[in-house]
Amino acid sequence: MSKLRVAVLGAKGRIGSEAVRAVEAAEDMELVAALGRDDKLETLVETGAQVAVELTNPASVMGNLDFCVRHGIHGVVGTTGWTDDRLAQLKGWLEQFPETGVLIAPNFSIGAVLTMKFAQIAAPLFESVEVVELHHPNKADAPSGTATRTAQLIAEARARAGSAPAPDATVTALEGARGADVDGVPVHAVRLRGLLAHQEVLLGGEGETLTIRHDSLHHSSFMPGVLLGVRRVVTTPGLTFGLENFLDLN
Amino acid sequence: MSKLRVAVLGAKGRIGSEAVRAVEAAEDMELVAALGRDDKLETLVETGAQVAVELTNPASVMGNLDFCVRHGIHGVVGTTGWTDDRLAQLKGWLEQFPETGVLIAPNFSIGAVLTMKFAQIAAPLFESVEVVELHHPNKADAPSGTATRTAQLIAEARARAGSAPAPDATVTALEGARGADVDGVPVHAVRLRGLLAHQEVLLGGEGETLTIRHDSLHHSSFMPGVLLGVRRVVTTPGLTFGLENFLDLN
Amino acid sequence: MSKLRVAVLGAKGRIGSEAVRAVEAAEDMELVAALGRDDKLETLVETGAQVAVELTNPASVMGNLDFCVRHGIHGVVGTTGWTDDRLAQLKGWLEQFPETGVLIAPNFSIGAVLTMKFAQIAAPLFESVEVVELHHPNKADAPSGTATRTAQLIAEARARAGSAPAPDATVTALEGARGADVDGVPVHAVRLRGLLAHQEVLLGGEGETLTIRHDSLHHSSFMPGVLLGVRRVVTTPGLTFGLENFLDLN
Amino acid sequence: MSKLRVAVLGAKGRIGSEAVRAVEAAEDMELVAALGRDDKLETLVETGAQVAVELTNPASVMGNLDFCVRHGIHGVVGTTGWTDDRLAQLKGWLEQFPETGVLIAPNFSIGAVLTMKFAQIAAPLFESVEVVELHHPNKADAPSGTATRTAQLIAEARARAGSAPAPDATVTALEGARGADVDGVPVHAVRLRGLLAHQEVLLGGEGETLTIRHDSLHHSSFMPGVLLGVRRVVTTPGLTFGLENFLDLN
Repeated sequence: MSKLRVAVLGAKGRIGSEAVRAVEAAEDMELVAALGRDDKLETLVETGAQVAVELTNPASVMGNLDFCVRHGIHGVVGTTGWTDDRLAQLKGWLEQFPETGVLIAPNFSIGAVLTMKFAQIAAPLFESVEVVELHHPNKADAPSGTATRTAQLIAEARARAGSAPAPDATVTALEGARGADVDGVPVHAVRLRGLLAHQEVLLGGEGETLTIRHDSLHHSSFMPGVLLGVRRVVTTPGLTFGLENFLDLN
Repeated sequence: MSKLRVAVLGAKGRIGSEAVRAVEAAEDMELVAALGRDDKLETLVETGAQVAVELTNPASVMGNLDFCVRHGIHGVVGTTGWTDDRLAQLKGWLEQFPETGVLIAPNFSIGAVLTMKFAQIAAPLFESVEVVELHHPNKADAPSGTATRTAQLIAEARARAGSAPAPDATVTALEGARGADVDGVPVHAVRLRGLLAHQEVLLGGEGETLTIRHDSLHHSSFMPGVLLGVRRVVTTPGLTFGLENFLDLN
Repeated sequence: MSKLRVAVLGAKGRIGSEAVRAVEAAEDMELVAALGRDDKLETLVETGAQVAVELTNPASVMGNLDFCVRHGIHGVVGTTGWTDDRLAQLKGWLEQFPETGVLIAPNFSIGAVLTMKFAQIAAPLFESVEVVELHHPNKADAPSGTATRTAQLIAEARARAGSAPAPDATVTALEGARGADVDGVPVHAVRLRGLLAHQEVLLGGEGETLTIRHDSLHHSSFMPGVLLGVRRVVTTPGLTFGLENFLDLN
Repeated sequence: MSKLRVAVLGAKGRIGSEAVRAVEAAEDMELVAALGRDDKLETLVETGAQVAVELTNPASVMGNLDFCVRHGIHGVVGTTGWTDDRLAQLKGWLEQFPETGVLIAPNFSIGAVLTMKFAQIAAPLFESVEVVELHHPNKADAPSGTATRTAQLIAEARARAGSAPAPDATVTALEGARGADVDGVPVHAVRLRGLLAHQEVLLGGEGETLTIRHDSLHHSSFMPGVLLGVRRVVTTPGLTFGLENFLDLN
C-alpha cells in the first residue's frame, strides 16, 4: 500500500514540530513538506501532498485552506478562532470541490473527546453528576475550558432527557466547598504541582458510581488524534467539525 | 399521567424483594402484584398488570413468560439460563403478539452496562488496554464473570478494527505479575476486605490514559436498571436482549 | 489464653448493636454484658467485665466512666461531647486508680485516623496539598467534619515546618471552583448518589503526586478500631485520647 | 542567610544535569562546581563546596567520597552498588571525620519513600493488602523493583505484627489473575502506553479501604529529595542510609 503523502503547515511551532515527528514516525505516512511562516504554499502541490495538517494561527488559516481546497488537498486543522462566518466561507469552498475533505478539531486528544462523549451518554442515566479537574498550579483559569465544556454538554444532555436536578441536601457549607456551578453541574478545580491536565466525570446512582477519568501526562497526547484525522479525512469529503465524528462511537 | 401497573414475580427472593421496594418507591409506578412460588399467574390479569418483572429461576421463567405474552403483559426479565432454543421459542410467542415487549437483561446495573459499552468503543482507539477488577475476598472465581466478559468484548472490538496487539516489552516477570490473559487482554483480580464489586478499564495512548471505573457499593445497584427497563419495555414491542439497547447510547 | 471479658454500654443503639456483634465475633473476646438505658451498672462487676465499650450519650458517659474507673474496669469510649473540664475530671479519677486505662476516640475508623496521620506527615514535604471529600447527597454539611479536621491538621503541620503557601496562579475563576479555604488548604466536597463516605488527600511536588484515599463503604468500618482499642487499653493505664496512639505509627 | 555551597559530581549525565538545574533554581543554594568525568576533585576545595551531590557510577563513587570526607565536604549520594564492605569502609572514614555527614539514598523520590513507609505502618492494621503497579510498556521487568520492595516491606511488617494471611476464597482462577506472590502479598503489574511510573498500595478492612497511590509523572521527581538531602546532611554527621530518615516521619 502506498503511503499517505502528508504536509505540516506551522511546522516550526511547538505543536507543529511534534506533528512533524508523529507523521515521520507513522508507518503509513510520508512527510512530504514541513512549511514555516515564510515557505510557499506551492510546495504542497510540487510535493504531491494529499493531506495538509494545519497548525498555524487564525490570521493564516483561511488563506492556507483556500489554497488546499482549490488544489484538492485535504485538511486536518487544529488552528482555533472559528466563527460562523468563517465556517460558512469554508463550506462554500468545499461545495465547489466536493471530493475534498476538511476536519476541524478543537481538541485532538482522543481521551478528552471520548470523556466528553461518554459523559453526555451517561449523564441522563444517573441521578448525580459532578466534574473534578486537576491541573498544574501555573494555570490561570479555573475551571479549565475542557471541564467547563464538559459540564455544559452534561447539562444539555440532562435537559434534553428531562433529568431532575441532582440531589443535594447541603444546608451549611463553607463558601466554595460545593464547587463552581456550570449550568447546574458542580465543577471542582484542583491545582497541584506535578500534575499536567486531568479530568474526572463522576456519576452516581442507587448503589453504584461510574467514573470516567482522562489523564494527559504529556503534551504529545494530541498526536494520535491528528494521525487518525489524516487517515480518515481522505475518505470523508466536505466539512467535519469535531474529532468525535471520526471515532465510530456507535 | 396514570401510573404504570407493575407486578413482580419471584417477589419473596432477595432480589425480588428489592424490586418490590423499588417499584413501590417509584412515583410513576404502582405495584399491583407481588407473587411468590405458590401464587397464581391469573392474579396478573385480575390486577391489570401492564409489566411483569420476572425474577424467578430457569425452571419457572418460560411458563411465566408464556402466560404474560399471551395476555399482553410486557416482561422485564432478570432470570438467567437463556439458550438459543429458549430465545427462539420466546421470539415465536412474541410474533403472535406483536404489541408485547420483553426485555431480557443479563446485567441490570447501568454502570456495568455502560462500562462494557464504553470499553468496546474506546478499545480500538488506544494502543493499550487492561482490566483490573476488585472484589471482596469471599469471591470464589477470579477474574469475575463481568471482567472476563468485558475483556472478551474489548478483544472482539479490537479484532474487528484490526488493532495491533498492545505493546509489552516485559522480558523477566514473576509468574502472574502481568495478570490473566483473556483473548489477549490482561485482566488483574484484586481481593480486599471491605470491597464489594469494582472494575476499572485502563486505556493508554501516546501521552494520555483513559480510565473507566465502575463501583458497585450496594446490591441495590441493579434497581435503577430494572425501573428503566419497565418504563421502556411498554413502548418496545418484540424481544430486546441487553439493557444497553434502552440506554440511548448513540 | 483466656478471653478478654467485654461489656457494651449503649448496646441497643445502632452503633452499640454493631459493637455487640463485633465483640461476639472476636475470637479473643467474650461478651459478658450488653447494657441498655435501664440496666444496672452493677452488672459489670457481677459479670467480671474487664473492659467496657462506652457508646451511650454525653448525658450518661461521665456517670458510666466514674463507675468503671472506681471498679478497675477499663473503658473504650466512642461517646462525644468532651470538654476540657470533663477531660480534667476523668484524669482526676484515673490518678486515683492508676492501673485503669481509658481510651477516648473521636473516630474509630483506622482508615480515617491513618489518613489524617499520613496527611500530617506528608504535607510539609510537598509543595501542594488539597483535600477532596465525597459523600452521599443526603449529607447536610460541606465539607465534612473529617475533611475540615484533616485540612486543619495539614495546615498546622505546614505552619510548624515553615512551608510556603501552595503555588496557585489562578487569575480568573468561577466562584467556588477552587473549593473552600480551610486555613489555606483548598477543600472540595462532592455529593453523589451511591457513595457513602470517602476522602482523598492530594499532594504534589516536582514531577510526582502522592494520593491518600480513604473509602468508608459500610458503617461497620469503625468496628476493627473498637476491637483494637479493647485489646490495647488493658495494658495502657491512664487516659489516651485518639486511636492513633494505639496504631504504632513510628 | 548565606547560601549553601553545592557541587554536583556526574554533572554531565541525564540525572546529574537535572541536579545542576535544581541546585541553580534553589534559592537557598549556590552551585559552585559541576564536575564531569575528567574534572579534578580539587575544584571542590578551591570553590569552597560544603556539599557534594554524587551522581556518578559505582566505579567512581568510593574515590569521590574518600576525597570529600577527608576535606569535610558532606555527601548526598544517588549512585548505586552499595555492599556491606563498601558501607563499612565509608563508616570507617566518617569515624575519623566525625563532623562530616553522608546520605546514601536508593530512592530520592519523596513520594516513593513515603508510600513504602506508610504501607509498612498500615499493613498490619488491615486484613488485606495488595500492590498494583502501572508503568509504560517499554519496561523489561514485572513487577517493578519498587513494587517488589514495597511488598517485601509489607510482608515483613505483617510478620513482625503477627498478622494473619489476607483472606482469599478464590477456588477457580485463570492463571495469573491473582497476580504475582511476593512473600504472600499479591502484586499486579499493568503496562500501558502513556504512563510513566505509578504504584498503588490497597489496604482493606471491615467496611473500609485505604489506598496509597504514588504517581511519577516526570523523571524530575527525585529532585526535591536531593535538595532536601543537601539541606539536612549538613547538620547530620555520620552515615545516613535512606531518605526516609530525613523526612520527620514520627
